[in-house]
Amino acid sequence: MQDFFSPRGIAVVGASRDPARIGHHILKNLKAAGYAGPIYPVNPSGEEILGLPSYPRLADVPGPAELVVLALRTDALDAFLADLEARQAARGDVRALVATGAGYAEIGTEEGRRRQERLTSACRRLGVRILGPNCIGVADTRTGVDTTFLSVPHLRPGAVSLVSQSGGMVAWLYGLWAGEPSSPGLARMVNVGNAADVSLAEAVRFLGADPDTRALGVYVEGTTRARDLLDAIAGAARDKPVVVLKGGLTEAGGAAAASHTGNLAGTGPLWEGTLRQAGALVARSPEEFTAFLTAAERLWPAVGAPGAGTTSRGDADSPGSAEPLRVAILTNAGGAGVLASDALWGESGGAAVPAHLDPATLEAVSAVLPPFAAVGRPDGYVDATAGASPAHIARAAARLAADPGVDLVFLIVLSTPYIPADVLAREVDAALTEAEAMPGTRSGLAPVATVLPAGPLQAAGREGFARAGRIALPSLHSGARAVLALARYRMWRAARGWQRPWREAAAVAAGNGAPPGRLLGEREAARLLAEWGVPFPPARFASTPAEAVAAAGDVGYPVVLKVASPDIAHKTDVGGVRLGVSGPAEVAAAWEEIMAAVSRRRPEARIDGMVVQRQEPPGVELLVGGLRDPSFGPVVTAGLGGIFAEVYRDVAWRLAPVTEADALEMLRELRGYPLLTGARGRPAVDLGAAARVIAAVSRAVARVPGLREVDVNPVLLYPDRAVAVDALVRLDG
Amino acid sequence: MQDFFSPRGIAVVGASRDPARIGHHILKNLKAAGYAGPIYPVNPSGEEILGLPSYPRLADVPGPAELVVLALRTDALDAFLADLEARQAARGDVRALVATGAGYAEIGTEEGRRRQERLTSACRRLGVRILGPNCIGVADTRTGVDTTFLSVPHLRPGAVSLVSQSGGMVAWLYGLWAGEPSSPGLARMVNVGNAADVSLAEAVRFLGADPDTRALGVYVEGTTRARDLLDAIAGAARDKPVVVLKGGLTEAGGAAAASHTGNLAGTGPLWEGTLRQAGALVARSPEEFTAFLTAAERLWPAVGAPGAGTTSRGDADSPGSAEPLRVAILTNAGGAGVLASDALWGESGGAAVPAHLDPATLEAVSAVLPPFAAVGRPDGYVDATAGASPAHIARAAARLAADPGVDLVFLIVLSTPYIPADVLAREVDAALTEAEAMPGTRSGLAPVATVLPAGPLQAAGREGFARAGRIALPSLHSGARAVLALARYRMWRAARGWQRPWREAAAVAAGNGAPPGRLLGEREAARLLAEWGVPFPPARFASTPAEAVAAAGDVGYPVVLKVASPDIAHKTDVGGVRLGVSGPAEVAAAWEEIMAAVSRRRPEARIDGMVVQRQEPPGVELLVGGLRDPSFGPVVTAGLGGIFAEVYRDVAWRLAPVTEADALEMLRELRGYPLLTGARGRPAVDLGAAARVIAAVSRAVARVPGLREVDVNPVLLYPDRAVAVDALVRLDG
Repeated sequence: MQDFFSPRGIAVVGASRDPARIGHHILKNLKAAGYAGPIYPVNPSGEEILGLPSYPRLADVPGPAELVVLALRTDALDAFLADLEARQAARGDVRALVATGAGYAEIGTEEGRRRQERLTSACRRLGVRILGPNCIGVADTRTGVDTTFLSVPHLRPGAVSLVSQSGGMVAWLYGLWAGEPSSPGLARMVNVGNAADVSLAEAVRFLGADPDTRALGVYVEGTTRARDLLDAIAGAARDKPVVVLKGGLTEAGGAAAASHTGNLAGTGPLWEGTLRQAGALVARSPEEFTAFLTAAERLWPAVGAPGAGTTSRGDADSPGSAEPLRVAILTNAGGAGVLASDALWGESGGAAVPAHLDPATLEAVSAVLPPFAAVGRPDGYVDATAGASPAHIARAAARLAADPGVDLVFLIVLSTPYIPADVLAREVDAALTEAEAMPGTRSGLAPVATVLPAGPLQAAGREGFARAGRIALPSLHSGARAVLALARYRMWRAARGWQRPWREAAAVAAGNGAPPGRLLGEREAARLLAEWGVPFPPARFASTPAEAVAAAGDVGYPVVLKVASPDIAHKTDVGGVRLGVSGPAEVAAAWEEIMAAVSRRRPEARIDGMVVQRQEPPGVELLVGGLRDPSFGPVVTAGLGGIFAEVYRDVAWRLAPVTEADALEMLRELRGYPLLTGARGRPAVDLGAAARVIAAVSRAVARVPGLREVDVNPVLLYPDRAVAVDALVRLDG
Repeated sequence: MQDFFSPRGIAVVGASRDPARIGHHILKNLKAAGYAGPIYPVNPSGEEILGLPSYPRLADVPGPAELVVLALRTDALDAFLADLEARQAARGDVRALVATGAGYAEIGTEEGRRRQERLTSACRRLGVRILGPNCIGVADTRTGVDTTFLSVPHLRPGAVSLVSQSGGMVAWLYGLWAGEPSSPGLARMVNVGNAADVSLAEAVRFLGADPDTRALGVYVEGTTRARDLLDAIAGAARDKPVVVLKGGLTEAGGAAAASHTGNLAGTGPLWEGTLRQAGALVARSPEEFTAFLTAAERLWPAVGAPGAGTTSRGDADSPGSAEPLRVAILTNAGGAGVLASDALWGESGGAAVPAHLDPATLEAVSAVLPPFAAVGRPDGYVDATAGASPAHIARAAARLAADPGVDLVFLIVLSTPYIPADVLAREVDAALTEAEAMPGTRSGLAPVATVLPAGPLQAAGREGFARAGRIALPSLHSGARAVLALARYRMWRAARGWQRPWREAAAVAAGNGAPPGRLLGEREAARLLAEWGVPFPPARFASTPAEAVAAAGDVGYPVVLKVASPDIAHKTDVGGVRLGVSGPAEVAAAWEEIMAAVSRRRPEARIDGMVVQRQEPPGVELLVGGLRDPSFGPVVTAGLGGIFAEVYRDVAWRLAPVTEADALEMLRELRGYPLLTGARGRPAVDLGAAARVIAAVSRAVARVPGLREVDVNPVLLYPDRAVAVDALVRLDG
């Protein structure tokens, strides 16, 4: 992909003098972006365009044209491909093509698909990589390559790169960022559009390895290769924060979520669970995405380790930390501080806690603030009050940042006519710089994340903080959530989430049009899952009542009798199950009752006999399932059984296989987790045993060839063990 | 309160030439805000300040001084009060005082409390109303009164008024709004600070009745009189949207949430439920608060009724609508449109749905858009694509707004170098104005809410929309949530939520320091609640085994036996309960067993006998509770029993008493509501019967003198009835 970002020579095919044509704006933008190599407009007229000599055909371009930007209408595609072929035959120097414009596969017609196929097959043959079609291409603030018609020159160059499926979302983000001092700085941008050649995953891998990219932002709507994208994200997240904005999370259903287990989810929860697994920082809106990237660019790796600070405490290989981030809040605007406490401490989900301030810190902070300031009330919280001057605030921030019990200072400031925003920024920067330089500050200061209101009149303050290399966020809520996202990323690193046990799985999956598959009988299903480590109660097959009595004696009373028939999937519905059978006479009676009920309701069904299983006592019910999704490959889900999964949608999803540690994380993610740890005075269940069942099911889903769907429901959890009492397995037809 | 907003003459006591003093900035701001009456600086020096002659004492001021702004340090308070007394003795013209500055009750010391008491008692005696102390006062963009030291002159005058407990939050909001074209326009602002005299509720009532205020924003952190505030909000919401931002929603515990039922809640859920009951639009961040107010100012009452439009369809007395808002989305930025669909349709909680577009609309919209536009895919959604010109977008918006099946058009636009934002604004405004004027458009157009990105470079577009009187919102997510908030307000109006049955309740409540109270015995508790309409199973009291057998015959087998003792609160814990007793012999046996168990575990307890209650079959378990809170007064709660309430916190709160309709709304609010309507193939329960129990408990909580806490848990719900099987009632000691 390097050819897209640092080509020797760029040709713009369809460049135009007419400002109503996109080819005009692309050329204009490219010139303004400062690309140092030669730029060749290509236009049949051959006239000069925007001061550059133009050429009638690509083949006529005199110098190198490693990157070609195609800005023609689709009806000119075939002529262009002929021109490209001529160029390659003559010079062979074209290596990359940005195919802008709509009218390809995205319009959903056969004509569009055929057009895209002509483009891709020609380029494959000619050795040219394609970005798009239906994309705005790339931008690189270092090399000045910019194939868009947007306002890249107005963006601040920096260390954040973007990968977007949608060109419109890139434009929207530029609309948010351009001219705003607190926005992230841009390194590189790639818009893959229809992704006929370069995929989202390839772009993520490329920028994940890019040394100029310190944080990566990804906008995704949908892909037929979700697993590959998640693999790329997890790989990139090993080295840097990857922020993801997912469009279409609420889209109901879809082919991915099949039959029973699938109904619990839709694709949204599947994306949420697997993005979390891949270490992504998942934002919910363009504003959050922006704040997360600003924070990632400026605060990582400073917040990467416990007590990590800006100067010497953190480094790029930060190991992360399993501990919550200890945050101190300092404000000169009371109400805003209260709201930040809600967002950072009250809704952190365990990712952040109030920093416990050292008595020496409390004393030092009180000493530098006005008399009515509230210091350490509550712990970790300092309200400097509206009477505090910029110098007061700056000194207090520096004292808090020097407390070894503080991982991050969240500084909420507001300028007023007598607290000028730019002075505030200068004073805070000066105080922190001075404190950092102090010989006693051996382990460095905690980073300071500053929030100022978003309004234009506060822009001078945001500008001042940004210019000083200090982070300035324009929204309390997004800023707080950005800090929490980094705190969770820190935890993911501590758990070494990038190790990806799920990479082992062959990502083979049946397509959408596949036949319905074949349901295994209960005995076969249990046998298959038991081989992978799922524990079932003792059970025997019996083909006569006498065998059933003997079997019951073997497994131990009480027992359950279940009819065994290749024709009956839902045994309970036809009276095919008897629970709590407690002696030999009852076994014989239950046999007769089941036979009578089944032959009445399903007279045509072939009956092999009965399964006699030991009856387990009541326990906490877990459901564990898995399926092979065409886009995600093998996935595993776990949730509290019955109502909790169905009504409260309280299930967690992961790519399979997972380790036991991953499985424990899935259980902790459930809102109903307290039910497993002893809520309402119940005994806590054996979490390790539960996790082992999840991991075992995930291995089966990932490794059994042709396995399409597994549903183990319920798994009964006890204080000392877990046991699966029913299972359904579906194989490819 | 009118005296604060249109006084004849304002004196600023503590006005100063020194820009480091707050009195300097208040005077400067007041002059700049354009107040037309006389302004009198008061300063011991008697020098001219900012071009105005100043006076050594308030008593020396020659003209009317109906409003006094106190900008002195607290050590000068007593001298000021003497001066005020002299003024009133001589002229008696001071009617209102804005008391700025800290050092009063908010610092939590006895000295601060005494200082505040001296201020309030003096003013009460002298007939002067106080705002504050510890506040920044008032602003009025019509009269030019402005007692703050903030940048009010930079705010756009408009129809939104603010009531804030915190001055810092007002400053924060000004920081967001000043200079931003899409921000709400300000009518009036009141900051109550410590609220020693003028309360939040009084300010809300005053501005609720203010004809210049079309929408009201309220920031609240906490109050000892929550019920009064909620009453004021509901009263104001009868006439106009009231947007509330609540700080400290996550604050754990507090005196409000008492003992058992309280533990489920904390004050956050109590606030959330009661604010919803009062018709407030509850925002979660300053950015949402801003977007909600902008939307309320511009879109209400246009979206107030089904098919309501900007010109003739809505009016100020809009009745609201019980139907979801039918929203069409039009975008020229694909990704942003997808995210808006998530936010508006996928996460609407039933408040909004995609508009079903008329075939004629689809045809007309397709005709005015470029060839590759996606029109009505999915229903209600139009992606005009990046190739659409301002004229294309404008015409499509007008066609959508004219569809009678559309209640609101959500227009998401993005300017690029060839779609200039200001041109876009002009074109959209022109197309809508033209369509509104068309004779065929009898019922008016649906309102169009436009979203543009927040960045400075898109400000020209936001400015253009705002200038044309068209709403422009700067955030997709906040904008979408603002529309949903108005849709819910529309539903609240349809339910006539302002009728406030809970006003009947005497808001008497025990204070925090009250004694623990007295627990009623089960029979008394059931008798009390039954009088208010809570149904219990048939039950008899028995003092001997023979009486118990007779009682069981009366109520019908199976029965439950429960020990009756004034000394035993938790009967089950001491073996005092036997379930499922199915015949006379079993009754006698159960009696012996209970007596033995209880006398073994609680030998000292006095035993009156047993309650013999008919055993009810298993049903869906509801919990219904209530308490009398010192700040909220009588409140009622309902939730699914057991785990659902405790682990999932799935309970709803309201001020008591509630109507059955309110109670049904509480049930619908539960995430577990599908369990009541037949999820998992269960029969649906009798919702009316459940609602009647909630309403009955709420009446008891509101009207029984000295009733402190009720916990009816569980109420068993069946398809045809509801019955309470256990109840706890606590009265004031």
